[in-house]
Amino acid sequence: MSADAVTVEVGLGTRSYDILIGPGLIGRAGEEIARRLPGIRAAIVSDENVAAHHLGALSESLSRSGIESTSIMLPAGEKTKNFDALQQVVDGILAARLERGDAVIALGGGVIGDLAGFAAGIVRRGMNFVQMPTSLLAQVDSSVGGKTGINTAHGKNLVGVFHQPRLVLADTGALDTLPAREFRAGYAEVAKYGLIDRPDFFAWLEKNWQEVFDGGPARTEAIAQSCSAKAEVVARDEFETGDRALLNLGHTFGHALEAATGYDGARLVHGEGVAIGMALAHRFSARLNLASHDDAARVEAHLTAVGLPWRMADIPGPLPDAERLLGYIAQDKKVSRGALTFILTHGVGQSFIARDVPASEVLSFLRENHPG
Amino acid sequence: MSADAVTVEVGLGTRSYDILIGPGLIGRAGEEIARRLPGIRAAIVSDENVAAHHLGALSESLSRSGIESTSIMLPAGEKTKNFDALQQVVDGILAARLERGDAVIALGGGVIGDLAGFAAGIVRRGMNFVQMPTSLLAQVDSSVGGKTGINTAHGKNLVGVFHQPRLVLADTGALDTLPAREFRAGYAEVAKYGLIDRPDFFAWLEKNWQEVFDGGPARTEAIAQSCSAKAEVVARDEFETGDRALLNLGHTFGHALEAATGYDGARLVHGEGVAIGMALAHRFSARLNLASHDDAARVEAHLTAVGLPWRMADIPGPLPDAERLLGYIAQDKKVSRGALTFILTHGVGQSFIARDVPASEVLSFLRENHPG
Repeated sequence: MSADAVTVEVGLGTRSYDILIGPGLIGRAGEEIARRLPGIRAAIVSDENVAAHHLGALSESLSRSGIESTSIMLPAGEKTKNFDALQQVVDGILAARLERGDAVIALGGGVIGDLAGFAAGIVRRGMNFVQMPTSLLAQVDSSVGGKTGINTAHGKNLVGVFHQPRLVLADTGALDTLPAREFRAGYAEVAKYGLIDRPDFFAWLEKNWQEVFDGGPARTEAIAQSCSAKAEVVARDEFETGDRALLNLGHTFGHALEAATGYDGARLVHGEGVAIGMALAHRFSARLNLASHDDAARVEAHLTAVGLPWRMADIPGPLPDAERLLGYIAQDKKVSRGALTFILTHGVGQSFIARDVPASEVLSFLRENHPG
Repeated sequence: MSADAVTVEVGLGTRSYDILIGPGLIGRAGEEIARRLPGIRAAIVSDENVAAHHLGALSESLSRSGIESTSIMLPAGEKTKNFDALQQVVDGILAARLERGDAVIALGGGVIGDLAGFAAGIVRRGMNFVQMPTSLLAQVDSSVGGKTGINTAHGKNLVGVFHQPRLVLADTGALDTLPAREFRAGYAEVAKYGLIDRPDFFAWLEKNWQEVFDGGPARTEAIAQSCSAKAEVVARDEFETGDRALLNLGHTFGHALEAATGYDGARLVHGEGVAIGMALAHRFSARLNLASHDDAARVEAHLTAVGLPWRMADIPGPLPDAERLLGYIAQDKKVSRGALTFILTHGVGQSFIARDVPASEVLSFLRENHPG
């Protein structure tokens, strides 16, 4: 594989778009965007941390391709994903007098992508949107599928729209500046795609994960496989009325643990919650005699190898008791009309949507696995 | 025609829905909603004025059909269509713990419909939405087509989403409590559908307008014709990339006049701006030798007959000069990439989209017709 970009197409009819993955894409974003959206102007939405590394290169590239741009800067961090910041981005886009055919460019991680995408989806009832994810998590997850949104006091991502990008530019070089813990957390979502329905990819990761962490072609390959896996599921179910729920593997337990630790990133970041959640989903499936305990052990071994947490005991500090954790699960938005829905599995790469999982089974399982 | 409801279907593939039009629909909303959306809960969004007349009847009807509901009250008036009110509605829906399959019901005029529809479009990335328009303008315009939105300091309706309702219940009885001026302003949009592409409907209105104002079957018929006319245009162009612009007949001049009078409803309400705008569009078309002066005179005569304003001189108080009015037109969102787009006409019922209308022609026309 060359160092050049690989392309994954997300097939959504008239809303189809390309994801370009590879090094150096920020520096040639202008030509890639101008080729697909000629004659536009743009608003770049970013945060201060990312902008310090990449905003100059992006602005220059746009300028070289004749794309006039303005930039809208936000504080870094999950707290930014709120109504006030949304209003600030919307005002910035309108103040620049951008029209529906112009573009909003998200340069940053998942927070920036979700927020900028939401703004692009509502200004003039939908503007062109270009994603330039700079974290591994954003490259393999939030940049594919068109979900945008913000958090409210009632929960995370409860407010937003489906708004597909016109183009995603995933510059793998941007990942070199990520802190190791953040890269590792993003890797949990990479492994997730293998566990959902690509057993060969999971086996490939077991062998090649070190090269994925080190960078180079294996990293590009892992990101491309992940985007392609997600794109396949999204193409089947763009508006999340069915199959798309598979992408929540590990997320029901994971979200509950994030909530239970007060979204304190020092204790648990999203990808770590997903890692623990995936391990628990496999162990819970084994306990329900749906999968083998060997498969659960295999997942735990791989998470251990890459340095990700996989037990509730791996979270520093005290956790609420099992009853309270169940309460957090029941509050999760994946709960439909009071029934508990989980993504369970018959083994590595064989996950499925289980509706009406009895709360009593979940509670017993949480009690058995609770560190307290 | 009986006093029972007539049904207009809006054909939008999987997003198709029915508009029921007739007296007494608020009192039997529960059964109509429960039949289409069984097992749901609901949040009613309304304003204090409308609620005083109709909220009790609606809540009771829902309750009789087993639909548990909560209500979210807003101050009446256009000023309510802002980010703060949107956030308040969103919070109210989330606080009631409604899920994606539950419904937001808008009970009120265009402001409530646009705001509640926007909230329904973004909570959980899209909930079920039911429109119960209580003004003539809302029944014939904003309840058809799925446009939702709010105003910002940069202009009206610049932020929103396309979100189609699942059902529209237009209770013609609710119009009996409207002030005469508001009913008349809404009538401007009724006449508009005749002028766009239904010359027979316009001729029918010339003969029957008094009965439409008096209520009864002619009113129901006029509303049904209007909804059906709009539905036909929307079905051709759901996301306003082409033909849908026809619905802006009278709106480019009208919006400019609304802006020029500072959106002061004491001087000019939206429908009155549209009435003047439609008359100007016909007179401007005649000046450009596209239509006959007789057709322009016919439009002016009908607006005079029903008591609607049709000249700039009919607006009380001073207006900005022609140059400034042109500035307001150029700011209007219908301006695409600097070119002036107008809906012009070849005569009654023969309107069309004219792109690249020279600003100099518009300016001369405004000067000739300026009362100052």
